[in-house]
Amino acid sequence: MIERIAILGTGLLGTSVGLALRASGYRGSIVGWNRSAEGAQLALEAGAIDAIAADPLLAALDSQVVVLAVPIYATLDLMEKLAGVLGSEHLVTDVGSTKGQITEAASRLFNTPERAAFLPGHPMAGKERGGAALGDAELFRNRVWLFTDDANWQRSARGAELAKEWRELVAAMGSRGIDIDPARHDEMVAWVSHLPQLLATALSALLQEKVGDAPELKDVGGRALGEMTRLGASPYSMWRDIAATNTEAIQMALDALEQRLAHLRENLRTPALRDEFEQANRFRRE
Amino acid sequence: MIERIAILGTGLLGTSVGLALRASGYRGSIVGWNRSAEGAQLALEAGAIDAIAADPLLAALDSQVVVLAVPIYATLDLMEKLAGVLGSEHLVTDVGSTKGQITEAASRLFNTPERAAFLPGHPMAGKERGGAALGDAELFRNRVWLFTDDANWQRSARGAELAKEWRELVAAMGSRGIDIDPARHDEMVAWVSHLPQLLATALSALLQEKVGDAPELKDVGGRALGEMTRLGASPYSMWRDIAATNTEAIQMALDALEQRLAHLRENLRTPALRDEFEQANRFRRE
Repeated sequence: MIERIAILGTGLLGTSVGLALRASGYRGSIVGWNRSAEGAQLALEAGAIDAIAADPLLAALDSQVVVLAVPIYATLDLMEKLAGVLGSEHLVTDVGSTKGQITEAASRLFNTPERAAFLPGHPMAGKERGGAALGDAELFRNRVWLFTDDANWQRSARGAELAKEWRELVAAMGSRGIDIDPARHDEMVAWVSHLPQLLATALSALLQEKVGDAPELKDVGGRALGEMTRLGASPYSMWRDIAATNTEAIQMALDALEQRLAHLRENLRTPALRDEFEQANRFRRE
Repeated sequence: MIERIAILGTGLLGTSVGLALRASGYRGSIVGWNRSAEGAQLALEAGAIDAIAADPLLAALDSQVVVLAVPIYATLDLMEKLAGVLGSEHLVTDVGSTKGQITEAASRLFNTPERAAFLPGHPMAGKERGGAALGDAELFRNRVWLFTDDANWQRSARGAELAKEWRELVAAMGSRGIDIDPARHDEMVAWVSHLPQLLATALSALLQEKVGDAPELKDVGGRALGEMTRLGASPYSMWRDIAATNTEAIQMALDALEQRLAHLRENLRTPALRDEFEQANRFRRE
């Protein structure tokens, strides 16, 4: 059974993983490392971790499971470093929002009988603002946790066992694990996650330019405006890496939406407007 | 004091007005008319109205205040008919989402000393689905209720008094009344209300086409996707008239958003992405 977990990165997701593990009854140790000392201290005070590690590699070496909860390029960087120090008695997993490059690195650097195992993961959960202070033991409840596992990987027996146990801990945190091909994952999240985010960003930025000097207009917009721009608060620091590692799929989704909006714009007084509303109604009904 | 109110159209807004009037302590009579008998019956059973009228013009004649709560073209049609039968002892008001044409009709047909008074109104409240069954006494609480009143109108003393009393009832329902020029109103709601709606419609319709055959993908999207598409359920029957009576302002807003999305699409890997996120962050902070 897993007795020692290291969480590298105690932002919103890392802290929430620690809190959710505790809430689900996990009794082993949880050590945390964070680039800023403040974030690690908040996670410690919240009870998400038992101790703060000074060095991420030493913390990983001393654990059975290493959870990478940093932006994607930082995840790839840590993967390179961890591959050099960990062995077949370790499992590394992550929570990154794009899976193509991470899964490719997992094939290249991990998942042989002699090396550490790596299970690429992506919990479909988050908040529009980050940080340990917003950590939430319930963040993963009733959510989907995607895995881009690969049946061809030849893990050590210990690595395979730890991967199985981590999936059980994910289930205990309240998430439904789903296995998916990494390319299919990245295409899919471009539609259902990255497109909605960039849309909220574009709408919020546009409205800031057009009505930002008249704060009372936000009151006028009411609940609908609030919902459609809530994700406008999302931090660039996280989305930069997502945009850079899933560029083509996101471009395709944005292009399709631009065409759809142009179609609406050209048909505000034609029966095609009805077709668009009915198509949209179907999405919400099914 | 207002003792007899007729609500013409007992859909979501008309029913909510009746319920909110009762909840705020209004003790006079409320008669309701609706195009479909079922909607009127639901409003009656909910306590939003005391009685169902068979004829909207007779119900209006027998009241002091007439509230038009039907789509915009139906509002314009009723205004023509009511102008022919009502006199200086009546006030007519409405809840329509665009105010240019309605305010123009109010100038042409009402608001002389001999004619009925007309106070154009627009509560910034609603739900993504319509109908009397969703009527809500709290719908207008902490919302803005816009008026496109005109200081040049020469109302009868009785009409002016009724308009003042109706504003007091609006305040009693929990709304903050704001006066605004009708052209400015229509331009502003194009940005903060019509654009978000059409965006949700376009996104929902697009996703229905792309992932509609894989219902599990909606689970993957989670809360963010749910919020960004909630308005996709909005009915064409209401939005047709809005799109047709505010076409130019909506086209301008849609065009600006298309350009913004294209800008994002072309800059997914450049520092301009940071600028967009920061501009969006400002909108949510202020």
